[in-house]
Amino acid sequence: MLRRDVRIGVVTSNENKFIELKELAKSFNIELEQLKGEKIEIQSDNLEEISKTAAYLAYLTFRRPLIVDDSGLFIETLQNFPGPYTNFVKNTIGLKGILKLLEDLKDRSAYFMTVLTFTDGKIIKTFNGIVKGVISEEIRGNSGFGFDPIFIPEGEKRTFAEMSLEEKNKYSHRARAFAKFADFLMSYLEKA
Amino acid sequence: MLRRDVRIGVVTSNENKFIELKELAKSFNIELEQLKGEKIEIQSDNLEEISKTAAYLAYLTFRRPLIVDDSGLFIETLQNFPGPYTNFVKNTIGLKGILKLLEDLKDRSAYFMTVLTFTDGKIIKTFNGIVKGVISEEIRGNSGFGFDPIFIPEGEKRTFAEMSLEEKNKYSHRARAFAKFADFLMSYLEKA
Repeated sequence: MLRRDVRIGVVTSNENKFIELKELAKSFNIELEQLKGEKIEIQSDNLEEISKTAAYLAYLTFRRPLIVDDSGLFIETLQNFPGPYTNFVKNTIGLKGILKLLEDLKDRSAYFMTVLTFTDGKIIKTFNGIVKGVISEEIRGNSGFGFDPIFIPEGEKRTFAEMSLEEKNKYSHRARAFAKFADFLMSYLEKA
Repeated sequence: MLRRDVRIGVVTSNENKFIELKELAKSFNIELEQLKGEKIEIQSDNLEEISKTAAYLAYLTFRRPLIVDDSGLFIETLQNFPGPYTNFVKNTIGLKGILKLLEDLKDRSAYFMTVLTFTDGKIIKTFNGIVKGVISEEIRGNSGFGFDPIFIPEGEKRTFAEMSLEEKNKYSHRARAFAKFADFLMSYLEKA
């Protein structure tokens, strides 16, 4: 298969996530196409398990090379809450709820993790990306999505939501997972 | 099929839930047997969808008449958090986290809901039970499980965790769902 033929499906209904992935893919000359269909996510505190199952089930529907991206925010002093349940927690207790849970607690360390799973029906492979940081004292910024307005990555003073997409993509969890995937894909296609 | 042959599997790894169900089943002369195996729960804010999918997938494994019971606590002022994510929320932010989220909020109304799904491979049917109440100001009692120590049902002053199993079973969400199921099962078996 020639490199320029690479066109990978992305199963997600989250437009912001797709835009981020598309931007990341550009620098690797990978073309992504959004596949809109139900992404089945199981309940688990293990992102890898959620991601793998979702990719496996999506393949049964779409029957073409695809990736799924599952991400979560893990706050250590809250025993890794909210973990993989980003959308649910964002839509219920919201960012304010997270800040309330951390009131009066000194340790605000947290990390974002992405598990990206690729499958083409022959193989299924996961790629992890982690970015460490802290939860901010207040909600700041309005770019990005999810928990970006309360997460400050290590070595920064700004939240992810105060950065441009290019800046965030320099060292986000998603960028790290995607870079590993792109690396793999290159050698996988060469062998194919 | 004779009534005394009724033996229904219950897919759960939660011993407390099984004990409650077994106690409920007694008064209807239904015999329950715990089926230990992975219960697959999808992420959804719709308990019915979670329960139906779990029952469907469990049937593929066990191939015998079975029920699954999915329950959740829905706190109205928190947009129905924690909803179906009982175990995850209990094991991360815990009961204390819930109380903290409600600090300074006047409206503490909440409800427990159970969706019980029955399938025998021919039909799949769900039964709902709801009990309304409020979230207590502090953690009280140590019987029951899950969010019982912070839930006071309507017309009561005690939390579910301050009641005996018999008392709780008088009007719990689970008891109501089970009674509907038992009713159904009786006429279903008569026709069979």
